[in-house]
Amino acid sequence: MEASSSPVLDALDEVLAERLRASGDTSYVAALYEKGLNKILEKVGEEATEVILAAKDCETEPTESAKADLVGEVADLWFHTLILLRKQGLSSKDILTRLEERFGTSGHTEKANRDKS
Amino acid sequence: MEASSSPVLDALDEVLAERLRASGDTSYVAALYEKGLNKILEKVGEEATEVILAAKDCETEPTESAKADLVGEVADLWFHTLILLRKQGLSSKDILTRLEERFGTSGHTEKANRDKS
Amino acid sequence: MEASSSPVLDALDEVLAERLRASGDTSYVAALYEKGLNKILEKVGEEATEVILAAKDCETEPTESAKADLVGEVADLWFHTLILLRKQGLSSKDILTRLEERFGTSGHTEKANRDKS
Amino acid sequence: MEASSSPVLDALDEVLAERLRASGDTSYVAALYEKGLNKILEKVGEEATEVILAAKDCETEPTESAKADLVGEVADLWFHTLILLRKQGLSSKDILTRLEERFGTSGHTEKANRDKS
Repeated sequence: MEASSSPVLDALDEVLAERLRASGDTSYVAALYEKGLNKILEKVGEEATEVILAAKDCETEPTESAKADLVGEVADLWFHTLILLRKQGLSSKDILTRLEERFGTSGHTEKANRDKS
Repeated sequence: MEASSSPVLDALDEVLAERLRASGDTSYVAALYEKGLNKILEKVGEEATEVILAAKDCETEPTESAKADLVGEVADLWFHTLILLRKQGLSSKDILTRLEERFGTSGHTEKANRDKS
Repeated sequence: MEASSSPVLDALDEVLAERLRASGDTSYVAALYEKGLNKILEKVGEEATEVILAAKDCETEPTESAKADLVGEVADLWFHTLILLRKQGLSSKDILTRLEERFGTSGHTEKANRDKS
Repeated sequence: MEASSSPVLDALDEVLAERLRASGDTSYVAALYEKGLNKILEKVGEEATEVILAAKDCETEPTESAKADLVGEVADLWFHTLILLRKQGLSSKDILTRLEERFGTSGHTEKANRDKS
């Protein structure tokens, strides 16, 4: 398998591409595409806020439930960025390839020492 | 390979775990861990804003350069959420597993028709 | 009148204080207080995202309608920060006093040359 | 005084208008105008994130210092929205007028019962 792929992300990419093509589709994703870019970006902003709130709650009380909430919010954020990317003809592969270019694939030759912005 | 893994994300997980353990590490990631949760969350907020701006600029002028910027901003956002997760003992596997639970792995039996929140 | 007051903001402060005290109140504000801090902060995050989107749309097409939308989104953002402040026993006066301390009241002796990045 | 004015906000409006006109100005505000809309919006996004973090910290430990931090972050957020508005030829008066239209000025006839979710 290529470094820059993941079965679940590949499957999601395929589903999102179908949703964008389909007409008469009443799914959540199709409805978001129909509403346009601003609506998708509002969801990205909302999910980012929810990640921040879940992380703060997890810091105050690091229970299993709080950790599960944090995982759910990050998954929602990634999901909505995949919806956004698909709208521009992009996919998770572009993100994984970019991460690979920046950090290497071996974990030994990584370039995480990038300059702090 | 498991559905919920990706070579590049696995490598990143490993690097982030090392960074968190290392003392005297002067990398960007180690510096962020040192500064604490709020600093990491400020970066998540910043990167989300930059994703939104890059997506709007990509809408206005959908050039290859604008698309590359969008990919870079989403990669930065995912990267900082991985830093956040690692601080709580979590990793990309938790996110991929969650996405898999929600949407299935085959692309045929997916559950993307979830209720709109 | 004091430098740090504004009739409309004073009136809003009073209304929000009443809403917070009232029981059985079914208003939008009372419902937000009931739902708790995270819900209020989700709204702050949402409104900030909407300000950003309205400003980008205003840049692309600076029509009167686009400007009115931007004004509406900033007003919504300020409104939700006032709701947030009230929950902590704070009000618009605290914000105006802080702005006054930082920038002076005359417009001539202002301290806007701060070096915050 | 008009309902929709505030001495400190009026003074700030004037200062921001001067900063936008001035050439060779090296102030923080002039530098932001020079860098353009995206930079201003990045600051709005950052300040919104900092408001959210300060509010969560204030919830966990409601000390005077935590409240002062929250006031400072909301003041920073308002300040950067005023910079944004000025760039479009708008000012605090537009925001106060909008708040007045929505909520009335008396505090008795307010329209806070809006059903916006």
